[in-house]
Amino acid sequence: MVTGKTHIRVSYSDTDQMGFMHHSNYLKYYETARWELFRNIGIPYNSIEKEGIILPVTEASVKYIKPAYYDQEIVIETRIKFVKGPRIIFYFLATNENGDTINEAQITVASVKKSTGKPLMMPKIILNKLTGLMNS
Amino acid sequence: MVTGKTHIRVSYSDTDQMGFMHHSNYLKYYETARWELFRNIGIPYNSIEKEGIILPVTEASVKYIKPAYYDQEIVIETRIKFVKGPRIIFYFLATNENGDTINEAQITVASVKKSTGKPLMMPKIILNKLTGLMNS
Amino acid sequence: MVTGKTHIRVSYSDTDQMGFMHHSNYLKYYETARWELFRNIGIPYNSIEKEGIILPVTEASVKYIKPAYYDQEIVIETRIKFVKGPRIIFYFLATNENGDTINEAQITVASVKKSTGKPLMMPKIILNKLTGLMNS
Amino acid sequence: MVTGKTHIRVSYSDTDQMGFMHHSNYLKYYETARWELFRNIGIPYNSIEKEGIILPVTEASVKYIKPAYYDQEIVIETRIKFVKGPRIIFYFLATNENGDTINEAQITVASVKKSTGKPLMMPKIILNKLTGLMNS
Repeated sequence: MVTGKTHIRVSYSDTDQMGFMHHSNYLKYYETARWELFRNIGIPYNSIEKEGIILPVTEASVKYIKPAYYDQEIVIETRIKFVKGPRIIFYFLATNENGDTINEAQITVASVKKSTGKPLMMPKIILNKLTGLMNS
Repeated sequence: MVTGKTHIRVSYSDTDQMGFMHHSNYLKYYETARWELFRNIGIPYNSIEKEGIILPVTEASVKYIKPAYYDQEIVIETRIKFVKGPRIIFYFLATNENGDTINEAQITVASVKKSTGKPLMMPKIILNKLTGLMNS
Repeated sequence: MVTGKTHIRVSYSDTDQMGFMHHSNYLKYYETARWELFRNIGIPYNSIEKEGIILPVTEASVKYIKPAYYDQEIVIETRIKFVKGPRIIFYFLATNENGDTINEAQITVASVKKSTGKPLMMPKIILNKLTGLMNS
Repeated sequence: MVTGKTHIRVSYSDTDQMGFMHHSNYLKYYETARWELFRNIGIPYNSIEKEGIILPVTEASVKYIKPAYYDQEIVIETRIKFVKGPRIIFYFLATNENGDTINEAQITVASVKKSTGKPLMMPKIILNKLTGLMNS
């Protein structure tokens, strides 16, 4: 199974006047987490964009379970749940320093040809790598 | 029915290197949109926080249909779908300058006592106002 | 003289746990303010980028005089102080709802050819427009 | 002399449509860098806020020398230049993976009593620690 672990420390600018990490930042953290996973399996996201392909988000579902606070180190576990055609579905689980689950999310990205904006099949080399790893 | 319309112009800092508005910004735009609706119905969000109550997001589902671009004026339609106990569920629809639907989302907030972090019933004055408006 | 006025409402996501608008946001607000001025004088920033020219910031000096708070409407006065060769120097003054000066800044941008990353003279049409307006 | 080194990887959400890291993010990176330095010398910023003291930015001067790009690891060198009364002046130098200096900044923070918003002398324990380290 393809999984990754990313450590992110909540920065001061990520907080809001509630004293929590602002809820929009999870989408940024999860973006960092999925491309860190990709880098670790040998497909840096930059190399995909260099082929004229982008992977924008098409769907995101986020559950906010507990707040995150300034200076906490959040651990994000990233799993690839599904790969087919142009779509990859990621599952994310965020845990705080006490081991509490604080957030979970499912995020779908789709491969799109940058020049046309049209969806296109993921390059075979990526598809094979991801499906190979999902079954391992 | 309680609805509102909010106009937001995509700022340069909201874009990313894909040339799109970064997908995390919708959560910020929708936050602005729901509190603008609240201000218009006479319940400015600040006045709620002054009562020691905060309304953090507990769930968000977002569908990205078309990209938004720098300098576009996005129109966000906000609807209150559900109010019960501590929870309010909002529905958002974002449209670009050509009238294309570009994004939709459902976002749940829950009223929480700031000092304890525990959920609590929405103040009656808010509850009555919202339910009154939902049925009108 | 070339001046503009931009109204920006501090959004919730712009605050931090001090309860202030986070200081980095002024750079975003001033960016919005200068391109709004450009749009008003008939040179939308997008039209410059379409010519293969970008105007990145090369210097910024910011003085934080008073905090800005959530939901305040900040008025930004933008003035073009200097235009020469590839450089434009802007001066910004931010005022809150009570008329207090809360922030001031001087920001320099330089015109750069997007494809090469090299500085280049501002297009004559822009230069003439800006210098014409500075002397009027 | 009090110095620190902080490594920050440019995240995708920090880029803009120029393809550069957006210039406002340096203020966030430098904030992270200075509190990391504080943590390393035994004064976590959170412990200061717990004493009812905040350290907002009062002045920032930033020079943008070269762009930063997505996924680059930026090294920030932080130096404390000056400590007196309520003020600390930091100097920052940012270097990219090739060792090029890409940005430098001087940022002043001032200690403020959170409850009153009035400036106040830095707590002796911090002052002594910082001046002690500056002379070592």
